[in-house]
Amino acid sequence: MINEVMYGLGSKSSVIRELFSYGLERKKVVGADKVYDFSLGNPSIPAPYQVKDAIAKLLEEPAEVLHGYSPASGDPGVKETLAQSVNRRFGTHFTGANFYMTVGAAASLSICINAVTNPGDEFITFAPFFPEYTVWVENAKAKLLINPADTESFQIDFDAFEGLLSPMTKGIIINSPNNPSGVVYSAETIQKLADVLRRKEKEYGHAIYLIADEPYREIVYEGVEVPYVPNYYENTFVCYSYSKSLSLPGERIGYIIVPDEMEDSKRVMAAVNGAGRALGFVCAPVLFQRVAAMCADVPSDIAAYARNRDLLYNGLTELGYECVRPQGAFYLFVKSPEPDANAFSERAKKHDVLVVPSDSFGCPGYVRISYCVAEKTIVDSMPAFKAIMEEVKAEQK
Amino acid sequence: MINEVMYGLGSKSSVIRELFSYGLERKKVVGADKVYDFSLGNPSIPAPYQVKDAIAKLLEEPAEVLHGYSPASGDPGVKETLAQSVNRRFGTHFTGANFYMTVGAAASLSICINAVTNPGDEFITFAPFFPEYTVWVENAKAKLLINPADTESFQIDFDAFEGLLSPMTKGIIINSPNNPSGVVYSAETIQKLADVLRRKEKEYGHAIYLIADEPYREIVYEGVEVPYVPNYYENTFVCYSYSKSLSLPGERIGYIIVPDEMEDSKRVMAAVNGAGRALGFVCAPVLFQRVAAMCADVPSDIAAYARNRDLLYNGLTELGYECVRPQGAFYLFVKSPEPDANAFSERAKKHDVLVVPSDSFGCPGYVRISYCVAEKTIVDSMPAFKAIMEEVKAEQK
Repeated sequence: MINEVMYGLGSKSSVIRELFSYGLERKKVVGADKVYDFSLGNPSIPAPYQVKDAIAKLLEEPAEVLHGYSPASGDPGVKETLAQSVNRRFGTHFTGANFYMTVGAAASLSICINAVTNPGDEFITFAPFFPEYTVWVENAKAKLLINPADTESFQIDFDAFEGLLSPMTKGIIINSPNNPSGVVYSAETIQKLADVLRRKEKEYGHAIYLIADEPYREIVYEGVEVPYVPNYYENTFVCYSYSKSLSLPGERIGYIIVPDEMEDSKRVMAAVNGAGRALGFVCAPVLFQRVAAMCADVPSDIAAYARNRDLLYNGLTELGYECVRPQGAFYLFVKSPEPDANAFSERAKKHDVLVVPSDSFGCPGYVRISYCVAEKTIVDSMPAFKAIMEEVKAEQK
Repeated sequence: MINEVMYGLGSKSSVIRELFSYGLERKKVVGADKVYDFSLGNPSIPAPYQVKDAIAKLLEEPAEVLHGYSPASGDPGVKETLAQSVNRRFGTHFTGANFYMTVGAAASLSICINAVTNPGDEFITFAPFFPEYTVWVENAKAKLLINPADTESFQIDFDAFEGLLSPMTKGIIINSPNNPSGVVYSAETIQKLADVLRRKEKEYGHAIYLIADEPYREIVYEGVEVPYVPNYYENTFVCYSYSKSLSLPGERIGYIIVPDEMEDSKRVMAAVNGAGRALGFVCAPVLFQRVAAMCADVPSDIAAYARNRDLLYNGLTELGYECVRPQGAFYLFVKSPEPDANAFSERAKKHDVLVVPSDSFGCPGYVRISYCVAEKTIVDSMPAFKAIMEEVKAEQK
């Protein structure tokens, strides 16, 4: 008599969460420094000192004002500050009215999807992709189609894409820098995607929304540029979160941008407000709305991630593992040295190395290794990775 | 092509929000002290000093731990602390496993409703009621039936209630202390409600969930006792929020309790987790989860509300206004001295007195007066309330 879909979603924990829980138990048995847990994407770098300073400063304000409701779409001053910051960086012309503050990226995506979806609509995303997309799209009574991965470059396989588009296509979800591949979509890829979508919009006679899920925008290495999607395509929703850039994943703070250039943008923004209301959001947490605004121009401290990436990438490729060198995020997407990545993940587990098999990302045969961990974990794990590879090779002989 | 239901929800602002916006504009014209704005339920009492102290103390912890993800259902230590606090106060036997931390009361309700609802289900609530219930119930593809108000006592009209119950009834939503009437349901009322529901559960052969929406539990006067609903009825969801008790409405922190006594309680808790996930929640804001636990036993400072209540109740009844003396919350539900409460609200507006007509609360002919305002606002508004009453009486002659 309860809702069985909700029961199903709540009773099966994700592979990632299961591995993480296993790791916690295992650490109790063999010691925390003997388990090499690469399962979770929980930032290991602390929030920059400016976050603490901002909170301390805000606490001097009268509490009844500081902790009071903001308008549903967010504090007007916060939204204006964020708009100006984005404009300075990307040459856009947003105002606060283009922003809707959210309880993090999951809320941003869920709200956008619900705002525009009618039952039977279809969304398309590109493997490898974040598995929760399926949950949010299906909860809005739409269907998520998966474009197979281009496993050469992990850019977009446009041949397959053309076959998935149809008059039912309501939107496309992209995630760059990508979880789990670490790849950044190039300007060329985004431009080509925009061209295809504009052509299809004309053909179908309706808007196709491009939802840009961008929590890793700031986590890029060696000056790689992440193209700013609204500058390429009008009907773009930007879904942002401060979880990774300010290392505040538990505080749940992010935003949606609905550009003026979007078709019927005022109506769409109203639908975003309506979807937030219908789902049970009231306003984004106000203290961290203010913190986000005060830290809008604070650079992300990614030096430690960059070091980890080099250590892990160089270490693993030297041992014979294959993977694309990640340009962003904090994941290495490694080809499983045996065909079944689940079997490989289980094998690694026996060496107390926890890596996530890629099936749930829609791209079998790989494992995701989160390198938002202590540097020591990476260094100490290398003998285990070596032993695992030797074991696989011995078996394959 | 967007979702028209969401557009509708986002484009029509509520009567309350419209009055509030009008008030802000009007204050710019005639001066803030000349507009008597009783529209919003935004706590006027600052958060207790313990909240600030708790935040300051938490900021000493390592930031990557402090602001990291908690499990989806909340920080285990926080949940255990809250369970013990509730047990001490209400003689219950909860553990942390009965708690699911939420992004405030709206999230609590939306999640519970989605967890148990299948399309076509019905919920019943008692007028006067919080209008957003309709939004959340309808978003879960269920129907909200309104039990007419018992305008004598503002307890429950059980004769009407029996007529609304049917095999389609999935749940009942109650809100005590009540927004907007300020009335607290007596132990007798809750007991009678539990008896009716248990009888109907047997008759229909399925559970009927009682959703107790309790943000005002701590805001009661003269030692009135608010019966603890799980002690009366097994299939109770407690939906709590710290918005009013700790004056933290903008921080969005609350919880759901699923008691072990509930039928299939483990399956229901899984469905609660699933609904949270499907709607786009990840975890409740972690800093304020911890603050809530550290302030679990801090009493609400309601002296100012009590003073305001007396001033307003005594002042208005002396002027000839009729209303039930509120035992809790911070609203006075006043009978409109003219038949149409909308007309009366418009008339009051001309005297710069902003009061909310009751139609959207499902109980026409009343106005809601929020007394979570400065004492001075109440004192200064009395001549205006007097002039309004005289105007109505003169017209009625």
